[in-house]
Amino acid sequence: MNLNEIGSHAKKAARSLARAAAEQKTQLLNSLADRLLASAETILAANARDVQLARQAGLAPASIDRLMLNPPRLESIVADLRSVAQMPDPVGEIIEQRTLPNGLRVRRQRVPLGVLGVIYEARPNVTIDVAGLALKTGNAAILRGGSETLHSNRALVAAVQAALLEHGFPAQAIQFIDDPDRALVHALLQLHEYVDIIIPRGGAKLHAFCREHSRIPVITGGIGICHLFVDASADLEAALPVIRNAKVQRPTVCNALDTALVHRDVAAQFLPRLVEYLEADGVTFRADASALPYFPDGLPASVTPAGEGDFDTEWLSLVLGLKVVGGLDEAIAHIETHSTAHSDGILTEDEENARRFVEQVDSAAVYVNASTRFTDGAQLGLGAEVAVSTQRLHARGPMGLRELTTYKWVIEGEYHTRG
Amino acid sequence: MNLNEIGSHAKKAARSLARAAAEQKTQLLNSLADRLLASAETILAANARDVQLARQAGLAPASIDRLMLNPPRLESIVADLRSVAQMPDPVGEIIEQRTLPNGLRVRRQRVPLGVLGVIYEARPNVTIDVAGLALKTGNAAILRGGSETLHSNRALVAAVQAALLEHGFPAQAIQFIDDPDRALVHALLQLHEYVDIIIPRGGAKLHAFCREHSRIPVITGGIGICHLFVDASADLEAALPVIRNAKVQRPTVCNALDTALVHRDVAAQFLPRLVEYLEADGVTFRADASALPYFPDGLPASVTPAGEGDFDTEWLSLVLGLKVVGGLDEAIAHIETHSTAHSDGILTEDEENARRFVEQVDSAAVYVNASTRFTDGAQLGLGAEVAVSTQRLHARGPMGLRELTTYKWVIEGEYHTRG
Repeated sequence: MNLNEIGSHAKKAARSLARAAAEQKTQLLNSLADRLLASAETILAANARDVQLARQAGLAPASIDRLMLNPPRLESIVADLRSVAQMPDPVGEIIEQRTLPNGLRVRRQRVPLGVLGVIYEARPNVTIDVAGLALKTGNAAILRGGSETLHSNRALVAAVQAALLEHGFPAQAIQFIDDPDRALVHALLQLHEYVDIIIPRGGAKLHAFCREHSRIPVITGGIGICHLFVDASADLEAALPVIRNAKVQRPTVCNALDTALVHRDVAAQFLPRLVEYLEADGVTFRADASALPYFPDGLPASVTPAGEGDFDTEWLSLVLGLKVVGGLDEAIAHIETHSTAHSDGILTEDEENARRFVEQVDSAAVYVNASTRFTDGAQLGLGAEVAVSTQRLHARGPMGLRELTTYKWVIEGEYHTRG
Repeated sequence: MNLNEIGSHAKKAARSLARAAAEQKTQLLNSLADRLLASAETILAANARDVQLARQAGLAPASIDRLMLNPPRLESIVADLRSVAQMPDPVGEIIEQRTLPNGLRVRRQRVPLGVLGVIYEARPNVTIDVAGLALKTGNAAILRGGSETLHSNRALVAAVQAALLEHGFPAQAIQFIDDPDRALVHALLQLHEYVDIIIPRGGAKLHAFCREHSRIPVITGGIGICHLFVDASADLEAALPVIRNAKVQRPTVCNALDTALVHRDVAAQFLPRLVEYLEADGVTFRADASALPYFPDGLPASVTPAGEGDFDTEWLSLVLGLKVVGGLDEAIAHIETHSTAHSDGILTEDEENARRFVEQVDSAAVYVNASTRFTDGAQLGLGAEVAVSTQRLHARGPMGLRELTTYKWVIEGEYHTRG
């Protein structure tokens, strides 16, 4: 498999996509949606083969579940695609324009990023998700999905490429590295001549691998050690469902809560109540030494003393760290030390504390009186999301369509020369 | 020299800088300006030592010139610093805000990038330039200047650190790798835990080295193979001074012109005229085979046939490539193949051709009827510039103060939970 050729084709296809009108791209996505439904039988059969091989290979049930497609799941993928198709096209937007004193007319105008390299795990929905977002924004993409989804991805990418050709675009606008050889991931990360951005969608190991080996800028993210600080002034009854929502609603995702920090002045009242409230959902707790004295009758069965590293763990499960702090400064200091700068919040009725928390906590998303679960492109009004960035360049937090673009400067004059 | 320690101090100092009010930062920069003038004797003595060592080491006169400070040059550095001090502070700017249908108030607000890693060559002015831009935007910086400026940089950074301490900021906000060991450049590129962006300011080799070895996002740029296309409809007399300005005004910089593409229909009239016009400035030419027939009486002494690779060379000198093209499409295709996507322009009276050129040429700066020399932060109204980016993420073209910031999402609710 010649990755240089894939890269060079992608770059060429990107030029063609970049010139597409908004309406053409909308039609392309809608037509892909139709085609996916029409090819449902082929796609589901290919996926069934992947699932069968995964079972034989002894893949964990949770992984097999993520890998599996069925008619409702395919319909949901198609519905998402149609919704992206309807979104406004950011390409061509004028970010800023002005006429300089010398008469030069200067503007910055949005253009596609170019070629996206997306590396992900065994989730076939990501294939269509990324293809849709990339094409909507006039980008080409090189996809590298988990090897367990090889047959599903072949079938899905075949549908994408057929739709591209039908609409007069080069099929190579969306390419798929159709070879499970892991060395190809490394090779993809070297293609800086052709690929403009690497988006890893997976765990911490994948992100570290990309950061270490890539010659292309990498959007790292998707890893959240998230905190909520219950200030002394918080409405404690209102705080309970917020913490519950952040911890319980979908514990396996990056914006789920990992640690509750509780102000010392309300710890006696709040901590036992919080444990009782969340025990009903099956939550278990890792309590810092500072929290232990607030269970004077002995620790409930759900609470164990926190071990080393517990406050640096993204739980991705129904586990919650508990710590009592002396006040706002200690809460902020804990967050500074342990947060992955994804999503952190304060629950408070004190405006000055809210202001200081927002100013001093430097996470991609900082909350006042809301669940961390809102860190999501759809929830924050971006319509869709390609990744959640926890690095600082280009985009932070949820990345939507606009974050898949860059800009160029356009400067128009009357045979102007620089003095 | 413990780079981890430098990194950890820088990150801590960045937090302190990030909280500084705009007025504090303005005062800090003005106070640094005063201090540089007050320490002029020490600084110039340190610089004289560098110059002496460089002469003994046989450094080229051009390099020694870039390395040398004298009272007017120091005053000019100080004037630039005072001008940055007066610029509006982008930190805290609200990029976007809205209230979502569920009542959540969401905004994106500018914050400093964090810690900048800046690697540059033997130019002591860059030390103060970067320190000023970093501090103005609330960032910390780790500087790695060329080894030939060791003594100058020591004296300059001492002044910066004294000013920081005087204003109650940690001295480690601006640190300098005070050891010429080249392995430390590589080590700096590994500090992803502490450093948020790498800005190389130097030649192609330095950029390639950073791209290859950095685990931190790198702003590559500063390398321009720049084109102007003289369309058949161009005002040919007006085109001459534009090409002259782009080629001659400062040939050693990245936005200087490298290749003139001339439409076949005006080549007979324009090419000999252009050569004659620029010969007076000492320009010599590398003519593509397509251009040779337009000198029917034999090539002028200043014109030689272009050799292999000439159109892929950033000349940085009074050399200009010449090529005749059949029309707009061929001009665009040549640019697509040979441009470094820095600055490319069209000279034309044809609005449709101008529109197509702007749409299809995907360079950081695309010009209509103006010299490529305007690709510069000060010229385009940014006030200052930390680099010119030719990569596509985060910022393209000249990067000013705003491009040294990122943003955070601030989400405020009334104990909102996600449904």
